Amino acid sequence: MSDKLPQASLDEIRHSLAHLLAAAVLQKYPDTKLGIGPVIDNGFYYDFLFSQPVTEDDLKDLQKDMRKLAHRHLDFTGEKLTAEGAKKMFKDQPFKVELIEEFSKDGKELTAYHTGDVFTDLCRGGHVTNTKQIDPESFKLSRLAGAYWRGSEKNPMLTRIYGLAFASKKELEAYEKMMEEAKKRDHRKLGKDLGLFTIIDEIGPGLPLFYPKGTILRRLVENYITDLQEKRGYVPIWIPHITKGKLYEISGHLQKYDAMYPPMQLPDEDAYYLKPMNCPHFMMLYNTLPHSYRELPIRYTSTTTNYRYEKSGELTGLTRVRALTQDDCHVFTRPDQIEAEINLMLDMINEAYTTFGFSDFWVRISTHDPENKEKYIGDKTIWAESEAALEKLIKNRGWKHEIGVGEAAFYGPKLDFILKDVLGREWQLSTIQLDMNLPKRFNLEYTDADGTKKQPVVIHRAILGSTERFLAILIEHFGGAFPLWLAPVQVAVIPVSEKHIDYAREIAKKLPGFRVQIAEENETLGKKIRGAEMQKIPYVLVVGDKEIEQNAVNVRHYKEGVLGTLSLDQLSAKLREEIEKKG
Amino acid sequence: MSDKLPQASLDEIRHSLAHLLAAAVLQKYPDTKLGIGPVIDNGFYYDFLFSQPVTEDDLKDLQKDMRKLAHRHLDFTGEKLTAEGAKKMFKDQPFKVELIEEFSKDGKELTAYHTGDVFTDLCRGGHVTNTKQIDPESFKLSRLAGAYWRGSEKNPMLTRIYGLAFASKKELEAYEKMMEEAKKRDHRKLGKDLGLFTIIDEIGPGLPLFYPKGTILRRLVENYITDLQEKRGYVPIWIPHITKGKLYEISGHLQKYDAMYPPMQLPDEDAYYLKPMNCPHFMMLYNTLPHSYRELPIRYTSTTTNYRYEKSGELTGLTRVRALTQDDCHVFTRPDQIEAEINLMLDMINEAYTTFGFSDFWVRISTHDPENKEKYIGDKTIWAESEAALEKLIKNRGWKHEIGVGEAAFYGPKLDFILKDVLGREWQLSTIQLDMNLPKRFNLEYTDADGTKKQPVVIHRAILGSTERFLAILIEHFGGAFPLWLAPVQVAVIPVSEKHIDYAREIAKKLPGFRVQIAEENETLGKKIRGAEMQKIPYVLVVGDKEIEQNAVNVRHYKEGVLGTLSLDQLSAKLREEIEKKG
Repeated sequence: MSDKLPQASLDEIRHSLAHLLAAAVLQKYPDTKLGIGPVIDNGFYYDFLFSQPVTEDDLKDLQKDMRKLAHRHLDFTGEKLTAEGAKKMFKDQPFKVELIEEFSKDGKELTAYHTGDVFTDLCRGGHVTNTKQIDPESFKLSRLAGAYWRGSEKNPMLTRIYGLAFASKKELEAYEKMMEEAKKRDHRKLGKDLGLFTIIDEIGPGLPLFYPKGTILRRLVENYITDLQEKRGYVPIWIPHITKGKLYEISGHLQKYDAMYPPMQLPDEDAYYLKPMNCPHFMMLYNTLPHSYRELPIRYTSTTTNYRYEKSGELTGLTRVRALTQDDCHVFTRPDQIEAEINLMLDMINEAYTTFGFSDFWVRISTHDPENKEKYIGDKTIWAESEAALEKLIKNRGWKHEIGVGEAAFYGPKLDFILKDVLGREWQLSTIQLDMNLPKRFNLEYTDADGTKKQPVVIHRAILGSTERFLAILIEHFGGAFPLWLAPVQVAVIPVSEKHIDYAREIAKKLPGFRVQIAEENETLGKKIRGAEMQKIPYVLVVGDKEIEQNAVNVRHYKEGVLGTLSLDQLSAKLREEIEKKG
Repeated sequence: MSDKLPQASLDEIRHSLAHLLAAAVLQKYPDTKLGIGPVIDNGFYYDFLFSQPVTEDDLKDLQKDMRKLAHRHLDFTGEKLTAEGAKKMFKDQPFKVELIEEFSKDGKELTAYHTGDVFTDLCRGGHVTNTKQIDPESFKLSRLAGAYWRGSEKNPMLTRIYGLAFASKKELEAYEKMMEEAKKRDHRKLGKDLGLFTIIDEIGPGLPLFYPKGTILRRLVENYITDLQEKRGYVPIWIPHITKGKLYEISGHLQKYDAMYPPMQLPDEDAYYLKPMNCPHFMMLYNTLPHSYRELPIRYTSTTTNYRYEKSGELTGLTRVRALTQDDCHVFTRPDQIEAEINLMLDMINEAYTTFGFSDFWVRISTHDPENKEKYIGDKTIWAESEAALEKLIKNRGWKHEIGVGEAAFYGPKLDFILKDVLGREWQLSTIQLDMNLPKRFNLEYTDADGTKKQPVVIHRAILGSTERFLAILIEHFGGAFPLWLAPVQVAVIPVSEKHIDYAREIAKKLPGFRVQIAEENETLGKKIRGAEMQKIPYVLVVGDKEIEQNAVNVRHYKEGVLGTLSLDQLSAKLREEIEKKG
């Protein structure tokens, strides 16, 4: 189709499709007021103020109209405008006029783009040359949503039409298939189907409650991280979830951190706050005791819940919650120990990712801006050495990475780990952050070998980030079919009929240490097996007359199907081995 | 001394001593205004408004004067008074006049008691006949404290003088010795000395932070209870620590529970509260799913922190905190399952007490008031059967108990467990409480065998009550010398000198699974051994040339002293066995 013209970029195609959508809308609903129509991750959208109701059912026709427009091989051409000319051109479009006034006040250049003679939009450009370059089969109008003009609830509510658009039909189909798979794997759906967690109106949005199975999953994940840490000399501490405001005055959070819950004002006492992060508590605990250079590094960890008042519209399932449980750690270290400490952290992150089955990740290294040195606090040598160490350590491991020059916080360089799940979606997970600010604000000290007082560097580190969000990723990554070591129920024992229940119970008893469930409900064998499959229980043991006779069980695996008859010893050994290697 | 007169009761002696104290005070400080002087657990006190400073140093003289008065063999005699006569008699004592006015308004009888001709007090009586009956060696003025008149900070601050008093000198000495021992075992002192926990001003009173050793102790205790429960079919859930107020409107707590922290009012949203108890969260979770009679009993547990705003003056160490972590459980049960469920709870309580080394306890059974039946809600048959079951189950086990008729809550009968520690002090610990109220308020249901909807009974249960308070008891009970399975550090390896450090590290590595600490500090052997003893570490391994040569360790036990040279295999086996039996 685009045989004569150069290949257009995906963004150009998407941006042009947004214009075709607006053109199709104006053809069909001439009174419509236009908002804006940008390119997004998977396509484009355009916001409209319709003068009549428009529903998802209308999208098919609009899509047809867009294809027709594309087939007309229309040229995209730009034109510079004066403010006055622009206002005249868009006199029937109040939102455009608003933008024109704003742009001209800011001294921005004004341009319009024409699509043949059918449509003109106020636009910075970035289009195909001709609609020939658009494959009409590679896009699709996908859905409608409400959106306030310019994102403010003080403005009118517009209707946003979303379109998917890719370079080819094949890519569009692959994306749709991925989305369909993602929908099936949606942790909110699986969380309900598998009985993992729930959110209850009367308790509040963003505050999930976990059923027994979800609680076991939480515990397995959290205990794994605890063990991972403690066998490397990390030590656990326990801190309360509330504090006087005084603590955040010292840390500086009270003035600056805006996701804090409002204070609880006690009569005749200070105001108390839910902790939104753990650092200040950790600093204070370090400070209750004198420390010698010999004791360092001190590696305090705590799996503890923080509270952040996220807007209710931004909360989704477990990925964004208001009570998030962090696998938090703060290492108090001498400057000469920084590299070794970070290397130890990389070991742990690597081991955790491998264990949970995430092999694809990359690292963002955020360093200081050499043009803007005055904005950073702390010792320049520590900055230089630690940035060099971060880069070297990541490179030595051969890990994919990007260096974000100037992206470091004012108090230290940082590593962020971005993980790809089985569907190719990216999740930011682990963080390693050097901090030369809090040690200063809290006057942290240790006595060095020469007897002088020195300030330790603090390294913040989380591996999973938060238990809740990590569980969401884990649920979607595995589609709820967890590896044996993580499965809340590892084995379902299904008696063929009522008379085999005793034997089923006996079997369950003979599998101590495994998480076993007996299907005692009064249902057909088929229904009970399907029930266990729906619950994605890794091993299903069917027991009837034959199994009793053989003193054995008939084993089915969730993924591998029927494995046949095994003795309990054989089965136990198999399960143990699988759990051991966290397969 | 009291040879001719009948034996006076301890309360009579204590009450009489309070009068002798007031008499001695007025002799010495005639302007003093008298408050009241009641009997207390270990003696008596009297409150005074002095017109001059009185300090602890003055107590010796006052005590001497009291003894002199006792030696004068003064009679205690009572006299009925009219309001007018009383006011005249106590015209110089404004606090007494205040009491007289109040008593006469309430129609109470007014009496005065004379001690010979040296002192007269407004008093209901209950004295020795003659001061001969008092052994002058069996009491002691112990300390001073400030106390508001009638406990209200709006009233003047008086000086309270405390006296210890017992039936004999021997008992007084035993009590003092016990108190001295209790002081040594004070968990606040040991918590600091052993590095278990701390309280930090900037974070707040009643909000302890736990150091690694304290955190390990918490975890051991909490994990023990978790295991105890789960091997009996209890299942864990996880609930957030905050909730909308709506939840407590349903439960009724919002109107009635006064230890709740003030609300956090979110903009354009409900007010949120820290949870002061877990029941409403548990009820809600039960209610998210339909339940069949076959599923019951459902036994939900959670070790989770509650927040109660206790007055800052009432907070002490870990015994009374503002963030208390409960080993909470709610069993949703059919009426026919109540007895078996309670019996299972008694098994668990018994096992827990035995394991933690508490053999002395008794049970308070709180039942309904048969004279006042209308004040109770719920099914009468359930009341009758469950009260009978509670009594039977406790009696069958031969456990000491008291029946508190009329002490049940309006929503169900209850068991409270009162524990004696090694010093004979009583602590209220476990609770089992039937509840027919919350199931009603939350409309809990299950479908019975006949298809009808029924209301389950809820049984609340905590074994330890709260982790924090239980740790306080545990620390004081063991005086910080924990049994091996609970010791935060189980083994200290002490190299004789610098050159034995490598061997010490090797030893530590060869004791995997045990909590081992190496004394690497640059100190003398003696100091290092004393250090380990101060930390009350159960096993100390000294390693020097001889041990390296023998590939062994020299073992000392905290209580048993030097055990001699053992191979690592011998030691490991010994440790494992001791931990196994939780000795």
